[in-house]
Amino acid sequence: MRRAPRRKTRAKKDFPVAEIRRFLEPGPIVLVSSAWRRETNIMTMGWHTVMEFTPSLVGCVISSGNHSFEMIRRSKECVINIPTVDLAEIVVRIGNSSGRDTDKFSAFGLTPVPAAAVGAPLIAECHANLECRLADARLVERYNFFVFEVVKAHAATTPRYPRTIHYRGDGVFMLSGSNTSRYRRLFRPGML
Amino acid sequence: MRRAPRRKTRAKKDFPVAEIRRFLEPGPIVLVSSAWRRETNIMTMGWHTVMEFTPSLVGCVISSGNHSFEMIRRSKECVINIPTVDLAEIVVRIGNSSGRDTDKFSAFGLTPVPAAAVGAPLIAECHANLECRLADARLVERYNFFVFEVVKAHAATTPRYPRTIHYRGDGVFMLSGSNTSRYRRLFRPGML
Repeated sequence: MRRAPRRKTRAKKDFPVAEIRRFLEPGPIVLVSSAWRRETNIMTMGWHTVMEFTPSLVGCVISSGNHSFEMIRRSKECVINIPTVDLAEIVVRIGNSSGRDTDKFSAFGLTPVPAAAVGAPLIAECHANLECRLADARLVERYNFFVFEVVKAHAATTPRYPRTIHYRGDGVFMLSGSNTSRYRRLFRPGML
Repeated sequence: MRRAPRRKTRAKKDFPVAEIRRFLEPGPIVLVSSAWRRETNIMTMGWHTVMEFTPSLVGCVISSGNHSFEMIRRSKECVINIPTVDLAEIVVRIGNSSGRDTDKFSAFGLTPVPAAAVGAPLIAECHANLECRLADARLVERYNFFVFEVVKAHAATTPRYPRTIHYRGDGVFMLSGSNTSRYRRLFRPGML
């Protein structure tokens, strides 16, 4: 496999876990990093949703066909990383290779950084990193659906609105477009 | 409440339920329509995820504080409608009013169209309409999380990639940007 060029890492600050909707609710494709015993892995994930502000809950589908599935089920932890458009090719290559035969951090030139609260590594090149602990596994067997609590979050301070990658299926990506607060005045207090 | 101007309705064709990721996976805000006894309602929803292709499953959070919650829990049905940017103001106004005191179809000038498989109405002005039946209520009590099966789907044939609205929280919306299939060649067959 061609070795990918090393990308820019991002300096991060702590980010409030109750506000991670800012990154996830617009629906970007994400990279999920995991660790189990001496192994690390990364998978690409598009099926996720915010579920609660406090505790900060995220639900997502991790197919049992993925090498990451057992690593996350056993370690009960992962990191959800938000990549931006400069990582689009790597995101696709990660989704089209398997941790069974590939060390993805090494193969794709990504930098693992120790997390604060979980064993899985952060991906330094991503805009934000959400450290997650498994909160509810009741729907794992039937739907491969994991409910995670985000226990610690890190985010780059610039750009304010990162250019994210959104998957439409069939090899087509939508890139996030312009941002507007022109409708903000229409919100009732408490509904923002 | 100011009566909104009537918007353009969209002619629709049947759309394969196994391919509704095309609309939902990029993460747009959606409008959920429901019916219970003689009442209809519409709510704005941002917390949803595709869960399976076949059966076509969608998971979503419908807060118990919403008037729609009991209507959907009792009828076990809803329609997930995909609005485009021309409906942004209406989407916000719908999210900031309640079916307890507002007939939202009438108040916002939206056109209810009978669905094929469920009792909830389609919203004619939206780009696509996904008719849903409740498939799993196990996480409703704890997380307000509903798993629906999409039993019938309708979509406008143009534009190919509708300009959708994605919520970032705090009154800020991201509008969907450009679309690219430049990475399609990197996908393994079966991974598209």
